[in-house]
Amino acid sequence: MQVDFSMAIGEAMNTQRAIRRVKPDPIDDTIILQLLELATRAPNAKNEQSWEFVVVKDIAVKKQLATENRTLWNMVKKRFEKKGRDNPAMQKLNVATQWAADNFENYPAMVVCCYKGSTLALHPLIGTQYYGSIFPAIQNLLLASRAINLGANLTTIALWNQRRSRRILGLPRGIVPCVVVTLGWPIGNYGPSCRKPVGDVVSLDRYNNKPWLGKSSGEIEIQKDTA
Amino acid sequence: MQVDFSMAIGEAMNTQRAIRRVKPDPIDDTIILQLLELATRAPNAKNEQSWEFVVVKDIAVKKQLATENRTLWNMVKKRFEKKGRDNPAMQKLNVATQWAADNFENYPAMVVCCYKGSTLALHPLIGTQYYGSIFPAIQNLLLASRAINLGANLTTIALWNQRRSRRILGLPRGIVPCVVVTLGWPIGNYGPSCRKPVGDVVSLDRYNNKPWLGKSSGEIEIQKDTA
Repeated sequence: MQVDFSMAIGEAMNTQRAIRRVKPDPIDDTIILQLLELATRAPNAKNEQSWEFVVVKDIAVKKQLATENRTLWNMVKKRFEKKGRDNPAMQKLNVATQWAADNFENYPAMVVCCYKGSTLALHPLIGTQYYGSIFPAIQNLLLASRAINLGANLTTIALWNQRRSRRILGLPRGIVPCVVVTLGWPIGNYGPSCRKPVGDVVSLDRYNNKPWLGKSSGEIEIQKDTA
Repeated sequence: MQVDFSMAIGEAMNTQRAIRRVKPDPIDDTIILQLLELATRAPNAKNEQSWEFVVVKDIAVKKQLATENRTLWNMVKKRFEKKGRDNPAMQKLNVATQWAADNFENYPAMVVCCYKGSTLALHPLIGTQYYGSIFPAIQNLLLASRAINLGANLTTIALWNQRRSRRILGLPRGIVPCVVVTLGWPIGNYGPSCRKPVGDVVSLDRYNNKPWLGKSSGEIEIQKDTA
């Protein structure tokens, strides 16, 4: 099935959010391959394209990853619940993460995104090269999913124990599992995300010189027009 | 100036490439802010939005980053030239990287993208969290630039010496400069990038089980239709 990636890029970015609650209905392989084809258009160091994607649909493999996911979540969730006490956004996140933990093996497909390298980067630029050669592809995968209304979520919980993740997925040394993107047709909808005004995180020429503090790009424009 | 982010996401991804050769013509601040606003719609760990973006337009700061960039490039370029001897793609990359080194201070603007954390990640999941909370935003910045035909390139060369990068940009400990995205109106054009068939990098259920080896998503579809 040829899918339609004509959604405007601004709309896709503005309405991208983590979709954890999905139906168990299957996703056509050709759809997953089209998403991954767009993923591989992403920039990567020296165009070496050393990424590897493991699409997991086999229930036996999914169950093993689900066990990994639950094990870590059960260890850390008390801490997250504590943090969430005065933080409604965190509470919502915790509920959704619990849902994902309870239903992990029911995602119709998940993509384990791997980079070529090592978990030990001796110079920051090496780490940047490893992660910088997989995360742009992951973001393409997420955005492309959003564009066709397929739910997607980036998670790392299931990969906390590298030795066991490797064994489950048959990954050799040198291919590092980085994130799991769960996929599925959403229960609920994509929609606008909640972010600080852009001016809060943008400095000019030197860190913390923030001429646009508290402002969105639209407000900056108004200010200029009336100047 | 309100810019138009209506380009189809598929087209933007399929025609994204590193644009190093650009004109020195200025870029309106409101354009840069709109790009960064889309960058901040990207996923990030726990929606903490701990990214920081330093937009550099001041020629004095640009010159210091240009010196950093040239220093490392002069140290490593012999090695890259050697690698490029039998590799036309690498030769092209080297020529473009040399152009960027020679003209670094003439980019009208560059964005130093920073994450909150440390260059030392004691567990792989921590590194994933740091880089995973900045690279999706960087990819949004690059894709959004592509959508408005503004040239953009992700580079790390200028940041090889963390101590000096910090001093140049006034970055405190805990805010790590990760990549520089150079911006400018392109000399030349965006266009299709060169990638392996998606089937070469996709395994099913277990690493190296590659049912789609050598195939693009279109070829997989044909195979299915005729089955």
